[in-house]
Amino acid sequence: MTEKTKLITPRLPRGFEDRTPGEISAVGAMIDKIKQVYERYGFDPVETPLFEYTETLGKFLPDTDRPNAGVFSLQDDDEQWMSLRYDLTAPLARFFAENFETLPKPYRSYRQGYVFRNEKPGPGRFRQFMQFDADTVGAPGPEADAEMCMMMADVMDALGLQGKYVVRVNNRKVLDGVLEAAGVTSDEQKLTVLRAVDKLDKFGPEGVKLLLGAGRKDESGDFTKGAGLSDTQAAVVLDYVSGKPPVDNAGVAELATMQALFDAAGYGAEKIKIDPSVVRGLEYYTGPVFEIELTFKVQNEKGQDVVFGSVGGGGRYDGLVSRFRKEPVPATGFSIGVSRLANALKLTGNLGATEPAGPVVVLVMDKDQTARYQAMVAELRQAGIRAEMFLGSTKNFGKQVAYADKRNSPIVIIEGSQEREQGVLQVKDLIAGKQAAEAITDNAEWKAARPGQFEIKRDELVSAVQKLLSEQG
Amino acid sequence: MTEKTKLITPRLPRGFEDRTPGEISAVGAMIDKIKQVYERYGFDPVETPLFEYTETLGKFLPDTDRPNAGVFSLQDDDEQWMSLRYDLTAPLARFFAENFETLPKPYRSYRQGYVFRNEKPGPGRFRQFMQFDADTVGAPGPEADAEMCMMMADVMDALGLQGKYVVRVNNRKVLDGVLEAAGVTSDEQKLTVLRAVDKLDKFGPEGVKLLLGAGRKDESGDFTKGAGLSDTQAAVVLDYVSGKPPVDNAGVAELATMQALFDAAGYGAEKIKIDPSVVRGLEYYTGPVFEIELTFKVQNEKGQDVVFGSVGGGGRYDGLVSRFRKEPVPATGFSIGVSRLANALKLTGNLGATEPAGPVVVLVMDKDQTARYQAMVAELRQAGIRAEMFLGSTKNFGKQVAYADKRNSPIVIIEGSQEREQGVLQVKDLIAGKQAAEAITDNAEWKAARPGQFEIKRDELVSAVQKLLSEQG
Repeated sequence: MTEKTKLITPRLPRGFEDRTPGEISAVGAMIDKIKQVYERYGFDPVETPLFEYTETLGKFLPDTDRPNAGVFSLQDDDEQWMSLRYDLTAPLARFFAENFETLPKPYRSYRQGYVFRNEKPGPGRFRQFMQFDADTVGAPGPEADAEMCMMMADVMDALGLQGKYVVRVNNRKVLDGVLEAAGVTSDEQKLTVLRAVDKLDKFGPEGVKLLLGAGRKDESGDFTKGAGLSDTQAAVVLDYVSGKPPVDNAGVAELATMQALFDAAGYGAEKIKIDPSVVRGLEYYTGPVFEIELTFKVQNEKGQDVVFGSVGGGGRYDGLVSRFRKEPVPATGFSIGVSRLANALKLTGNLGATEPAGPVVVLVMDKDQTARYQAMVAELRQAGIRAEMFLGSTKNFGKQVAYADKRNSPIVIIEGSQEREQGVLQVKDLIAGKQAAEAITDNAEWKAARPGQFEIKRDELVSAVQKLLSEQG
Repeated sequence: MTEKTKLITPRLPRGFEDRTPGEISAVGAMIDKIKQVYERYGFDPVETPLFEYTETLGKFLPDTDRPNAGVFSLQDDDEQWMSLRYDLTAPLARFFAENFETLPKPYRSYRQGYVFRNEKPGPGRFRQFMQFDADTVGAPGPEADAEMCMMMADVMDALGLQGKYVVRVNNRKVLDGVLEAAGVTSDEQKLTVLRAVDKLDKFGPEGVKLLLGAGRKDESGDFTKGAGLSDTQAAVVLDYVSGKPPVDNAGVAELATMQALFDAAGYGAEKIKIDPSVVRGLEYYTGPVFEIELTFKVQNEKGQDVVFGSVGGGGRYDGLVSRFRKEPVPATGFSIGVSRLANALKLTGNLGATEPAGPVVVLVMDKDQTARYQAMVAELRQAGIRAEMFLGSTKNFGKQVAYADKRNSPIVIIEGSQEREQGVLQVKDLIAGKQAAEAITDNAEWKAARPGQFEIKRDELVSAVQKLLSEQG
């Protein structure tokens, strides 16, 4: 490369983000807690690759004009289209069908990983994000769905969110019965009605009524077109969402079975609650649907108090695996949005440490003595202590201390030529130093006091550092 | 979906693989051990997204004819080309340059994640695989390189590979000096010479001599064209690889400094060894280069004993960040091939458990009593015991036991109507049962003995299971 090469601007692609050390370790700890619950429930991990054949994913078959609508797709050397997975459910369906003969049935698995959406990015809306799913494939009864709900509740408890969440449960068959009773027949109108029901929490019965009819104008003047139901039709739906028992059907019976299982296992309505307004967006749900709602209040961008809302959910999807196999393959599962859940835990103070503890830094006072400093660092590391020798430009002593500060270093070790001759080291307690600095305002006083600095013998290095670290807590 | 819909064949894209529970947990444990070493050395985690702008990755700019040469690339809505990362170093260079103002310098980070190669897949050669890297950016001296070598050695020790590895070290500047002394000037010829030197271990000095000259024919008759050096030129290179001290230059001095650091920190030649034949493939290395070689023997596909070989390596690459910034930004680091290292650990018996322990399975003897079974499972889980109720079709008792067997279940719990009336449970010890089954050959004898099965009171469930699990070990 010549010096005249044009410099490239370092930048991330739109809608993608880097993750910081604090985020990585905090989210890692959160994920470990979730895993423990899943494993206690008998679920085993599995991992599929990020690519699938586009026909496997099904929903978004690329066409030549827009090969990337919704998903990231590319054509392989052999002309086959591949796509980056957009969720963890479609790849599971492929995995289960491909390994049908050898997998235990029912097959319980959990999966964690990145998924991709080729959509317009926005604030907090990324094109790569992490999901954490659990699914049971090959279990036809509502017992499997009930277990999912209890597992979601246990996950929330394990994360310290007791009393701050509720798992809300409904059944798509119940909703279908209501639509039928209301005489709603077109698929498009059905979806609009379900979307309106889903807004009960947000807009109340009055808002839902508008969305079931002509439409609803919000405060900003934006108009959402309604489902266009007649008043009689709308009344059926509104009766249902306001708690009137729906037409008796298989969905109602399944919900009753699930409620009996919740009761028997000791999950009260403060943890899991049957709620007629739960819809869940995806079209592939065929029975029970559920979501985890965090019920504590946060301020939205307008400064209004709103509930934090959903951090995950799922339901029964008996049709998904059937794309690959003749016999029906029942399945149920749920997905947790990892970033959104981590944000919630940050707000409630349950996320844990967000910055790693800094290393002990051995300063380089004398450039041709690095072997001596390296030996000190090696001693500390062998004792299990996080430590490093300063590796930048050593001309400036202040820069080395500034580096240690920036790394949240608890202790700095100093050996100049004088110390070397005397066989001693200076130990600088940066935490005590910072506290003292707040009290001392005079520069001369500072230099005289040298807060937090003391001398040890060279061979006391490991023990002195261990002692000071434990004092620092 | 109608029944007439054509079934899709479930299959993975070429060159991609699913990961099993055993692999996930064993590799996860391995990665945790490596992380601990990296963190003890003062390295912090960082994670970049899987996509980068193609110009950021640099090496493989797509052209209109072959946008996917070597990397997976696609064009975004706004016409910009994005690529899936092919290693973890190029994204680090972008990350460091983009966050130059706020990062501590030197900047120590480790990164773990998938990388992608759009290449022809082969046995053991995948298009998505995991790397685990550590790098120090902004550290100009060989102290940083020496630290990398010691950290690689500590990682191998932490994985239990003491005495089975050696970190081999060389310096690209030394090799450049040899090439200069030999009068090799064209870039292409230089690369061919370096490739020949790299083969010393494999083909010995005689083989290298052929590759430096006209070329070498292997046993199968395949001919590899040589570098075309004259005998005098080849002699200079051969003298060097056979141990003659090379022309004195900056590289030689750097290696001497590194050796002094290894000595001071107690890393002998059995762990880290300077070796003139180490080349490393990538063109971007500018100083010290190093690789971890596993020295134990394995059989290759021809049944010959060969050393396991490299599981990772790296070197100094002072030019990579400079693509983004005017000032020079020195950097050094290394990368571990996660699957390859895991395979090595499997061979040496250091990989750890490869199958998760199975759950206690509560059988469903009576379909309308699932709430009772569910309550048992909930009790067990609340006591921290991995447990589940059988969720498949319950018509066939044998199928339920077969499921428990397939899941490696240690214990099965049975409550039929008789047990329910008496307030008792049958506990079936599947591990004792299996051992007994090996001894008993007669079917009648088996039925009479019911090996490993015993009765408990309903309220002893948790304590009895805990006791049996601890007896099973």
